[in-house]
Amino acid sequence: MRIVTTIAEVREAVRQARHAGQRIGFVPTMGYLHEGHLTLMRQARSEAGFVVVSIFVNPTQFGPNEDFARYPRDLERDEALCASVSVDLLFHPAVEEIYPQPFRTSVKVAGLTDRLCGASRPGHFDGVATVVSKLFNIVKPDVAYFGQKDAQQVAVIQRMVADLNLDLEIVPVPTVREPDGLAMSSRNTYLSPAERQAALVLSRSLAMARDLVMAGERNMSALAAAIRAMIAEEPLAEIDYVEIVDYAALQPVERLERRALAALAVRFGKTRLIDNITLEPS
Amino acid sequence: MRIVTTIAEVREAVRQARHAGQRIGFVPTMGYLHEGHLTLMRQARSEAGFVVVSIFVNPTQFGPNEDFARYPRDLERDEALCASVSVDLLFHPAVEEIYPQPFRTSVKVAGLTDRLCGASRPGHFDGVATVVSKLFNIVKPDVAYFGQKDAQQVAVIQRMVADLNLDLEIVPVPTVREPDGLAMSSRNTYLSPAERQAALVLSRSLAMARDLVMAGERNMSALAAAIRAMIAEEPLAEIDYVEIVDYAALQPVERLERRALAALAVRFGKTRLIDNITLEPS
Repeated sequence: MRIVTTIAEVREAVRQARHAGQRIGFVPTMGYLHEGHLTLMRQARSEAGFVVVSIFVNPTQFGPNEDFARYPRDLERDEALCASVSVDLLFHPAVEEIYPQPFRTSVKVAGLTDRLCGASRPGHFDGVATVVSKLFNIVKPDVAYFGQKDAQQVAVIQRMVADLNLDLEIVPVPTVREPDGLAMSSRNTYLSPAERQAALVLSRSLAMARDLVMAGERNMSALAAAIRAMIAEEPLAEIDYVEIVDYAALQPVERLERRALAALAVRFGKTRLIDNITLEPS
Repeated sequence: MRIVTTIAEVREAVRQARHAGQRIGFVPTMGYLHEGHLTLMRQARSEAGFVVVSIFVNPTQFGPNEDFARYPRDLERDEALCASVSVDLLFHPAVEEIYPQPFRTSVKVAGLTDRLCGASRPGHFDGVATVVSKLFNIVKPDVAYFGQKDAQQVAVIQRMVADLNLDLEIVPVPTVREPDGLAMSSRNTYLSPAERQAALVLSRSLAMARDLVMAGERNMSALAAAIRAMIAEEPLAEIDYVEIVDYAALQPVERLERRALAALAVRFGKTRLIDNITLEPS
């Protein structure tokens, strides 16, 4: 595995791989890798001849009071994990490599970004769309892999790729969970043991929601209320949002008639966790 | 010359040309071609193995009270002109091919777009940046050519290309003028004979400005005032703006110390024309 820090090195390595006829697979990450990331990389490895992973904690997608500075970082461990799943190229740029000054351009996806996490994290998805379009232009992958845990991010990126005619395929990959159900996240490391235990209410409430749908529930206001009620019983949990939205447009759904997304964000102490599941009417 | 209307046809033709080892040159236009456009195409022809021209009157860069509907169009004539300079591929998409609904993404370049034409045409450069980034992603050129007459557009696109890491070269091409000095523009066709004659004051005032600089004038407020005074003597001319700005950042300049841009927009009846020259301190 080659580790590079400059855009020029990425371009040259990818150019050579493409010249050799290889399909380019790409997994953009913010590092502090866990089994969710490794699942994306393994899928890339199985579908692409040349696998590129980026590790970049993107400052522009963090709000002023968010956790950019304390976001967990462990490059040495991340390198070993990438090597263990046979990544070909690890791109780990400095902030100045990605945002040389002056920097003035932003990519915005309207409509999908005002609800859910976009409502509590203004500007977040502009930061995501901008950095992801930059990384796509640097790596020029044929296919890129994103975790479905960040469902709104997947929807935003798919919309951006279609709207800007980016010539690549986006592959959403199902959320990977701990054995007890907690969705994997680099931010889980922030949790105290008590918070870690309390956070199980997230996957439990979503599983209950899916059970209710399978039992015939189609009223999505009632379903969201049931999720909220279960989470409210957990003293350490503070709900940011619980919403049931249309799967692609992310607009609120009253009655389940096609695929929808039950999505939530909940704080445990200073730590904000997100999770979601898809709901199918049949 | 091949004429296509779909993105898929462009991608396939460019893929084949690239596979044959050809450099891809691109000239995006809104059609109603004149010698300025043909100069861009000839330069592309001399520098690229495969020359793509797009003709697309982009609705999103026109304001609600602007001339989108009446913008001049003559595809048959444009086709003949493109063929006459040996263009390889002419892309002439319908609006629905470029903006299928829903469409939600926009590319914005801050700072460069609030002055000059950006001030009198709010949203114009967002429309330009978005459609140009789409066209770049569709054509994937190695090099793209833009007329320096639209100097602010060139600055915005160069900034966007750098910021988004688009892997292509932008070549600005000097403004082509009629024998009497009027900068070529598809909008010149709107002018009545009297307005056409009056519009000569634009190039005349800019030539005077350059003469004053060559004679030692370094005070750019005084220079702008001299340009405004000359234009004000023309009864059919109504000034939108006359500004002297830094060449790259497009910020106002008080004293000429490095390359600057003298740029203006002036109305003659319903027709708004722009022109500019570069000013060098030595």
